[in-house]
Amino acid sequence: MTILLLLPQSRELIYPMHPTPDHILHTGLAFWSSKTLLSAVEMEIFTELAKHPGDLATLQGRLGLHPRGARDFLDALVALGFLHRDGDGIYRNTPDTELFLDKAKPSYIGGILEMANHRLYPFWGSLTTAVRTGESQNESKGGQDPFTALYADPAKLREFLRAMSGVSRGANMAIAQKFPWGEYRSCTDIGTAQGDLVTQITLAQPHLQGIGFDLPEVGPIFEEYIASNGLDARVSFAGGSFFTDELPKADVLLFGHILHDWDLATKRMLLQKAYAALPAGGAVVVYDSIIDDARKENAFGLLMSLNMLIETPGGFDYTGADCIGWMQEAGFTNCRVEHLVGPDSMVIGIK
Amino acid sequence: MTILLLLPQSRELIYPMHPTPDHILHTGLAFWSSKTLLSAVEMEIFTELAKHPGDLATLQGRLGLHPRGARDFLDALVALGFLHRDGDGIYRNTPDTELFLDKAKPSYIGGILEMANHRLYPFWGSLTTAVRTGESQNESKGGQDPFTALYADPAKLREFLRAMSGVSRGANMAIAQKFPWGEYRSCTDIGTAQGDLVTQITLAQPHLQGIGFDLPEVGPIFEEYIASNGLDARVSFAGGSFFTDELPKADVLLFGHILHDWDLATKRMLLQKAYAALPAGGAVVVYDSIIDDARKENAFGLLMSLNMLIETPGGFDYTGADCIGWMQEAGFTNCRVEHLVGPDSMVIGIK
Repeated sequence: MTILLLLPQSRELIYPMHPTPDHILHTGLAFWSSKTLLSAVEMEIFTELAKHPGDLATLQGRLGLHPRGARDFLDALVALGFLHRDGDGIYRNTPDTELFLDKAKPSYIGGILEMANHRLYPFWGSLTTAVRTGESQNESKGGQDPFTALYADPAKLREFLRAMSGVSRGANMAIAQKFPWGEYRSCTDIGTAQGDLVTQITLAQPHLQGIGFDLPEVGPIFEEYIASNGLDARVSFAGGSFFTDELPKADVLLFGHILHDWDLATKRMLLQKAYAALPAGGAVVVYDSIIDDARKENAFGLLMSLNMLIETPGGFDYTGADCIGWMQEAGFTNCRVEHLVGPDSMVIGIK
Repeated sequence: MTILLLLPQSRELIYPMHPTPDHILHTGLAFWSSKTLLSAVEMEIFTELAKHPGDLATLQGRLGLHPRGARDFLDALVALGFLHRDGDGIYRNTPDTELFLDKAKPSYIGGILEMANHRLYPFWGSLTTAVRTGESQNESKGGQDPFTALYADPAKLREFLRAMSGVSRGANMAIAQKFPWGEYRSCTDIGTAQGDLVTQITLAQPHLQGIGFDLPEVGPIFEEYIASNGLDARVSFAGGSFFTDELPKADVLLFGHILHDWDLATKRMLLQKAYAALPAGGAVVVYDSIIDDARKENAFGLLMSLNMLIETPGGFDYTGADCIGWMQEAGFTNCRVEHLVGPDSMVIGIK
């Protein structure tokens, strides 16, 4: 039992560090803070406050909040560190939310949170079923390729592709700096989505030519994004399927948050196709929320793997050692893992 | 924009502390870790491991986990700090989960997480609607008293009452020590549920007599709990409604996680009834996740208030200053706020 030491003079309780229920209760109810932020993104509160800050009464009107919960909702966002409220009761964005959650800015990363709010939050409600059955719990419940449904619906596709940019931005910027790009002249981003990875790389490395490879439906969304970043001259789109087509040739082939979507056989096939498409001396760069080899530290990587359980028929995340093993089977040498940012690392192999 | 400083020699990136998307992404996806713990409690993993630890293959069989997700699920619980895995691959509880999440122990607090898993997680999926409409989003969607539905179903009632014990245990133990009980001889716990508050108080204070007051349906569950703690001789049950009946008299009247369930008029009425029931010199003790007066720090208290929005037609959480104001209106003096544990504080008033 928890031992309470009563100090007679101060009447203060001293709790031992452990055992305490704090971490259990905090984590078990963490979906409250999560969903509060997701609803705020859904209601575009940060976009609205980026236009101009406002007090409670003004914001109720502008955002369509009912008086009963409005103040608690906004003050919860203050206490969670996503808004500031000054002495006059004016709410405004923090520097983080002003930069990353204003839809009008190219730095917006809220796409992943919009998708989390619409899709992942309810699907994760069936986690127990997923763990008991091994079956995905999203729109494609039952086993078909989840990307087929997603890519068939232009609105969902656009949300998904923006979401991928949002969750990948930090890692993409890190790869643009950390990889030894000076040794190479071209790169192809496999499963490029909106194209944020090849965008960040070519923005940071003006000597590079880039290709984004994805299903043809992605083309217009990719080209719009590339144009908005002024990269039309150096970055182009190649439409195709990595199941039925060869990969476009380049000095460096990148797989950003791609391998974890697929089962083991597909992971291996993709690395074999990458080896075939690369010139001698070319490099493959795989990044994901790579799990630590001991599988004890990178909680986000392990949870992302559960997200792949919920979202895909066979996908899973993996350790650096797992990935290096598959790369070596495909023929790559000099394989290494390098940390990027947050939970993400890249695994590099040389042909 | 985020500024990346490239140090040419180390090729290391230095991110400034802010702005970064880390806190946004971490909170926005925190429902993953939350739901993982809730599913583990639902599957009684900690109860099973308390019987005996086991390796992956054994646990898959004992717990009914599908091979696809079993290892990621268990290792996510390791990385989140709720399980240990040793060098031989044997999973076991941490000291915290062994004590608080083994259903066979009286220290089990998982009831609140069972309820969070069954009820609150899906209801919070409608937070946006709640904030826009001001209406509750649970079984009683539409406005009726949520407790009527809950109290009418014995299984739901038992889960709810156990949940209340789980979420209140730490605060109850703190009140049992921190309040100056030496000055009083009896207490009544209003809305006692399973009776954990009066249990912790009378366990710690052998000179006290206690009464638990709640709707008559609660009686058998209360009496079972009191008996299991060996307190039959000093603690009894009084059945009634605090809407239609007077409160049982005692030197100290306690409201633990009660006032936040109700609208302002009911909060005031309850404090007036408490004043009427107390002798001169008697004390009222109200506890909840009392929000700091500036409404900027106690995020849990503000989120609990949103939970009351989702769960009740008119309930809300409040600051210490709010509560002292209502107590003074009812006639109480010497009112003060004292912190208990975690997000909970008590507000004390003297007649």
